[in-house]
Amino acid sequence: MTNLRIPGPTPLPPQVLKSLSKQMINHRGKSYEEIHERVIKNLKVFFQTKNDIFLLTSSGMGGLEAAVANFFSPGDRIVSFTVGEFGQRWADVARAYGADVLQVKFPLGTAVTIEKVKEVLAKEINVKGVFVTLNETATGVLSPVAEIGKIVKADLSGPLFLVDSISSLGAVNCSMDKIGIDVLVTASQKAWMAPPGISMIAVSPKAWEAHKKAKNPRYYFDISLFKKFAEKNQTPATPAVSVIYALDTALQMMVKVGKEKVFKKHLELMKYTREKISKMGLQLFVSDKDASPTVTSIKVPEGVDAHDWLGLMKKKYDVVLAGGMGETKGKIIRIAHMGFVSKKELDEALDAIRESLKEMHVNL
Amino acid sequence: MTNLRIPGPTPLPPQVLKSLSKQMINHRGKSYEEIHERVIKNLKVFFQTKNDIFLLTSSGMGGLEAAVANFFSPGDRIVSFTVGEFGQRWADVARAYGADVLQVKFPLGTAVTIEKVKEVLAKEINVKGVFVTLNETATGVLSPVAEIGKIVKADLSGPLFLVDSISSLGAVNCSMDKIGIDVLVTASQKAWMAPPGISMIAVSPKAWEAHKKAKNPRYYFDISLFKKFAEKNQTPATPAVSVIYALDTALQMMVKVGKEKVFKKHLELMKYTREKISKMGLQLFVSDKDASPTVTSIKVPEGVDAHDWLGLMKKKYDVVLAGGMGETKGKIIRIAHMGFVSKKELDEALDAIRESLKEMHVNL
Repeated sequence: MTNLRIPGPTPLPPQVLKSLSKQMINHRGKSYEEIHERVIKNLKVFFQTKNDIFLLTSSGMGGLEAAVANFFSPGDRIVSFTVGEFGQRWADVARAYGADVLQVKFPLGTAVTIEKVKEVLAKEINVKGVFVTLNETATGVLSPVAEIGKIVKADLSGPLFLVDSISSLGAVNCSMDKIGIDVLVTASQKAWMAPPGISMIAVSPKAWEAHKKAKNPRYYFDISLFKKFAEKNQTPATPAVSVIYALDTALQMMVKVGKEKVFKKHLELMKYTREKISKMGLQLFVSDKDASPTVTSIKVPEGVDAHDWLGLMKKKYDVVLAGGMGETKGKIIRIAHMGFVSKKELDEALDAIRESLKEMHVNL
Repeated sequence: MTNLRIPGPTPLPPQVLKSLSKQMINHRGKSYEEIHERVIKNLKVFFQTKNDIFLLTSSGMGGLEAAVANFFSPGDRIVSFTVGEFGQRWADVARAYGADVLQVKFPLGTAVTIEKVKEVLAKEINVKGVFVTLNETATGVLSPVAEIGKIVKADLSGPLFLVDSISSLGAVNCSMDKIGIDVLVTASQKAWMAPPGISMIAVSPKAWEAHKKAKNPRYYFDISLFKKFAEKNQTPATPAVSVIYALDTALQMMVKVGKEKVFKKHLELMKYTREKISKMGLQLFVSDKDASPTVTSIKVPEGVDAHDWLGLMKKKYDVVLAGGMGETKGKIIRIAHMGFVSKKELDEALDAIRESLKEMHVNL
């Protein structure tokens, strides 16, 4: 069987695959409402929040667009701390809605720094929102959102603090309520062991206040409609029922294991992967300090064509890894270790990395 | 097993349920691209078009929002011919994006009339778009889009002709190219025998021209991005892979049967349902002329509480029908006959309608 180690869609456990093949039900009936209620309750455990959480039928990018459409108006000043491709896309969404975006970029493979956040916010006046990517999928970088949150909250303009946790929440310890995140977005196909199709967005009371004044156009992603239907444990439009079945099963498994164990496992798999990669003589793209618990980037050795390398691993070892994106295309490959994964599958993938290089006569 | 006869989500055939439990694959790899290509090819058979078709990961409402976001600018004059709740929502989406909407409403339970379309368009100048719902799910009314299309195309302002075919395409003969529809939207959970999560939008060359000038904000639903990725048989963001597996399986089944047979079957089931309902002494909400091939509305008899009636059918016969929406709430119930359905399931549902009324001592 294919060893799929890209950072989403991630492989699904057998129980989740089984739940996907359940027959359809009425999305306005009790059976659906019970599932919806349980999914929200279990999501709150991993979001570590008492805030509202809504299930959007969309990819993660839809959740990021909902975060722009619901809380801002054209011309609003937004500061985007960007460390890679997905941070870039979120800033692009804000620009598409007419925001006045200050994009502060960090060198590829490095995280947002506290110093830079302090420096930028000290100069800015009337910032309405601060965007940070908790885990940049494109490079495997984790940014220190807890510390950034403190600086954002101390800012006199009172900006909203919005975090993209698409490829990390459910795997990484990030307490929405303790940190004081106002809008937190994630998606089903990453650490949640479910297929793509559902994005989750959590909304703080402060974000609700901003929502009331926000003039960006919205309907499909309008959280006011979601709030109204949430009272009945429903969604405004027909939700992706089969994906919600899967998410429900996966969340029950995750809650049973316990969030601390889930977080610890991901940290261990990160360390394990990084150590093995280093021992092979390969270079990690990201420092220990900034490393992601869900995805690890490896520098492509001198003289190796990344596309050929990935192709060989797929063809000969049935191991599927991801390449770089944008500026890192051809320069890194990425291996995911989130959700439904054990050391066994990681070992197989790491073996494929080593053996394929040997086969290409690469001396490390 | 529950006999689910609401107008979406509709029940899934066993083969489709099975395909839902296939393991995840790389959405940037060959296996996905082959599925995507086949889905688009087979959709074109039922859309009866050579135009681009894109797979949006969203509910049908997301497709209707994409139709507003991609082809119009704030202030654009849009004429919405509205026959029920879903036509109303589409007009609301256009208003949310700042369109200048002229909403022409028809009495509930009746279709758009050619006369009214002629009359309205003769008075209007500079109309940018005309919205029509092919099949109004909320009442079970089919509007004559082919005839409406001729009038719209003759209009000197050159408006786009946009059709919501969410609960009808795949079941009803509606040739996008012959009629000259510019934007056609449908969704996976209706006649397509797939679960909710994918909305399909088809775009004519004329709509592409309008898209280039359209200033409404968009990113997640931006068809320019979809077009770019479609060259590789991919989508810009991670698609709802499992729903696409299901859609692929269902479409292969539909193409094998042949579109003419599929259309004919739905017309037969419509006639069969209406005859049986009338024979029971119940009143149909919609005339033969305006009747929908996918969903039939039945007037709730005097003295019967619709909610109790639906509850009794669910509890005692495990038959799930839908109630009215908005102004028809409590006044009609709806029975769907689209997608994966045979006379056997319809008979069971119709029996439940008759027997439950007896049980409630209703004399028809």
